Amino acid sequence: MIAIQEKSLAQQVRADFPILHQEVNGQPLVYLDNAATSQKPQAVLEALNHYYRRDNSNVHRGVHTLSGRATDAYEGARDKVAAFVNAAHREEIIFTRNASEAINLVAYAWGQTQIQAGDEIILTVMEHHSNLIPWQMVAQRTGAVLKFVGLTETQEFDLEQYKALVSDRTRLVAVVHASNTLGCINPVEEIIAIAHRHGAKVLIDACQSAPHLKLDVQAMDCDWLVASGHKMCGPTGIGFLYGKQQILRSMPPFLGGGEMIADVFLDHATYADIPHKFEAGTPAIGEAIALGAAVDYLMEIGMDRIHAYEAELTAYLFKRLAEVPEVTVYGPQPDARGEGRTALASFTAGEVHPHDLSTILDQAGVAIRAGHHCTQPLHRAIGAQSTARASLYFYNTPAEIDKFIESLQEAVEFFGSIFG
Amino acid sequence: MIAIQEKSLAQQVRADFPILHQEVNGQPLVYLDNAATSQKPQAVLEALNHYYRRDNSNVHRGVHTLSGRATDAYEGARDKVAAFVNAAHREEIIFTRNASEAINLVAYAWGQTQIQAGDEIILTVMEHHSNLIPWQMVAQRTGAVLKFVGLTETQEFDLEQYKALVSDRTRLVAVVHASNTLGCINPVEEIIAIAHRHGAKVLIDACQSAPHLKLDVQAMDCDWLVASGHKMCGPTGIGFLYGKQQILRSMPPFLGGGEMIADVFLDHATYADIPHKFEAGTPAIGEAIALGAAVDYLMEIGMDRIHAYEAELTAYLFKRLAEVPEVTVYGPQPDARGEGRTALASFTAGEVHPHDLSTILDQAGVAIRAGHHCTQPLHRAIGAQSTARASLYFYNTPAEIDKFIESLQEAVEFFGSIFG
Repeated sequence: MIAIQEKSLAQQVRADFPILHQEVNGQPLVYLDNAATSQKPQAVLEALNHYYRRDNSNVHRGVHTLSGRATDAYEGARDKVAAFVNAAHREEIIFTRNASEAINLVAYAWGQTQIQAGDEIILTVMEHHSNLIPWQMVAQRTGAVLKFVGLTETQEFDLEQYKALVSDRTRLVAVVHASNTLGCINPVEEIIAIAHRHGAKVLIDACQSAPHLKLDVQAMDCDWLVASGHKMCGPTGIGFLYGKQQILRSMPPFLGGGEMIADVFLDHATYADIPHKFEAGTPAIGEAIALGAAVDYLMEIGMDRIHAYEAELTAYLFKRLAEVPEVTVYGPQPDARGEGRTALASFTAGEVHPHDLSTILDQAGVAIRAGHHCTQPLHRAIGAQSTARASLYFYNTPAEIDKFIESLQEAVEFFGSIFG
Repeated sequence: MIAIQEKSLAQQVRADFPILHQEVNGQPLVYLDNAATSQKPQAVLEALNHYYRRDNSNVHRGVHTLSGRATDAYEGARDKVAAFVNAAHREEIIFTRNASEAINLVAYAWGQTQIQAGDEIILTVMEHHSNLIPWQMVAQRTGAVLKFVGLTETQEFDLEQYKALVSDRTRLVAVVHASNTLGCINPVEEIIAIAHRHGAKVLIDACQSAPHLKLDVQAMDCDWLVASGHKMCGPTGIGFLYGKQQILRSMPPFLGGGEMIADVFLDHATYADIPHKFEAGTPAIGEAIALGAAVDYLMEIGMDRIHAYEAELTAYLFKRLAEVPEVTVYGPQPDARGEGRTALASFTAGEVHPHDLSTILDQAGVAIRAGHHCTQPLHRAIGAQSTARASLYFYNTPAEIDKFIESLQEAVEFFGSIFG
């Protein structure tokens, strides 16, 4: 085990996560599936519980005490998320069910109304399906053309190819901040600046960066940014869209219903201002409030501290993975300090099917994911049918990495003796 | 107080609802805002808590133990909701954030692709904005014509006018089952049968019936039905769409992303079968599971028993409201047994603004709603700018109705002395 500071971040926070303290198949749970969803600290569960036990009421439309409390808490959560990404205005945060819905909101309300035949949309081959399918739908309905940035030799964003692809025909660049499969961190500030010089708008998928890195949408200058709450210590059922105020104001509504209206007549309606214009119906009130508690929790620890600790874990994870025979890890290598990528590793081990690896590891209590991780085109690009993925968060420990490596070695040896 | 059975349903269940046992403004909370959102029993909060403390994981895509547990619980919730509405097939249930999203799903995926210029959509003047705005959007984008069924003299669905409106040009009838403002229960089986004779499809907004009445989508023969979880003892952030299997299968997807795909290529994708085709991205897993617990809770009590008890409350509510001077109640009167409408009353009291009534009642711990209840066109039709609304659920008691009436009388007298 590497020497990690006297009392590591994980040692300090593990008690906050009730789910981690259980056995799975008779072994202590080692949860390494954080890129799929993170676990929730006690503070988030308490926020949910408190809401339902004390304040539950519908928001905005009521004048009684519970409604006031619920509205204050819900809108307070918006303030917290706005601060978390350093939005200039609180109404630039729209609550959605998840990041997928946030991207679809932009694809429907902006893409399908603003993009025309022949316009170009630039994506990358590493996009999660959620940042690919909505744009395929836009292209099918508008006649726009999709262009894809490929990978460099180190399996990172090919900036040179991007520079060659972007032109005055480019209307939109939609790109993932940190790949959920490769772990690479894309140069979004440069990507955005280049796009803006050509008059194109940029949407950033921050699902895999928001939980791990300090975000600043103003410094980044993105037009939209999306993230999902459940990957950043929040509950399921909540995500958010950040959008620049003037762009959100210029977009027509997406979903119609209560809450998003100003005046309604039988044959037409006028719409509320942002953010409500994009939040039709009763919102995920409790979930937004709990996401606010998650943001409080992350900010109290400090995103810089989370990142620094995860870099240590990353360095250790890659060092140990290199010891396992026949393992191929995809995406860029971290530097000596564990920097330059996120704290996950997608890998294959010889001829062993990743699902079999995951099944075997589960017997040892180690939860990793196997499959295409919602990036089928990327898997084709890297020549893998599927991969196994171990993804870490700040509550993981070097000892858990050791347990993972030990189980992986046993699995590789076991299958090696079958195939060998 | 009327004589209600030895130990009433409310007396039996009130201990299950933690939120009810608190004081508001120094008075015991009397929560009469159930049409906006219901409170949650302990069993639902425990289901949420259990999920996050033991099983939280992303669903469908993982092979490890937690993922299996989460998937089983999530898909088990689908089974429960299917049983609750008596759907023929479990995959006819699509989880959405709320009923509004469910209606928008149908409006986008079916309405905007199937409805053409000149086609007619029949709605009613009593629709909630959530079942009006999406169809206004469809009409604006397709050139379809919206037609509206008005009210009878007793402020109920005008069946004769409906019969005159429906024709072979009618493609869709979208109608609320029970009005959230008038409390009338619409003859949906007859409405549906008539529409089907003309080849039109029917969507039922069951937000105000699912919590109170036994539903049977097969007997009803609706093509789609929507409801929101938070109004039926479930958490926020979850609702559902029921759709007939063959119709859902024929509809293109709505939101694009992970989970809803079969095979994804850079330029196109094939889609999963229902229900997953309509559930893009990580679903509201914990919320769906908790909705399943809510359905268990309701079914254990029995919807018939809930309805019978609420009818008693309705009769008592209307009897007591008739004693308050200057009060006008909208919608149909209940019969002597409290039948013929739902357990809510929208009303005005002379010249007193409903918001002022609600504010005064809140001082007495009584939570009622004031405003247009997301039915602005209906309020114009009944000649009221806004109304106050007391809406009951099975945990409410006759004593709470007494407290409400007493506070209402005081408020009316207070404002009467100002205005008089």
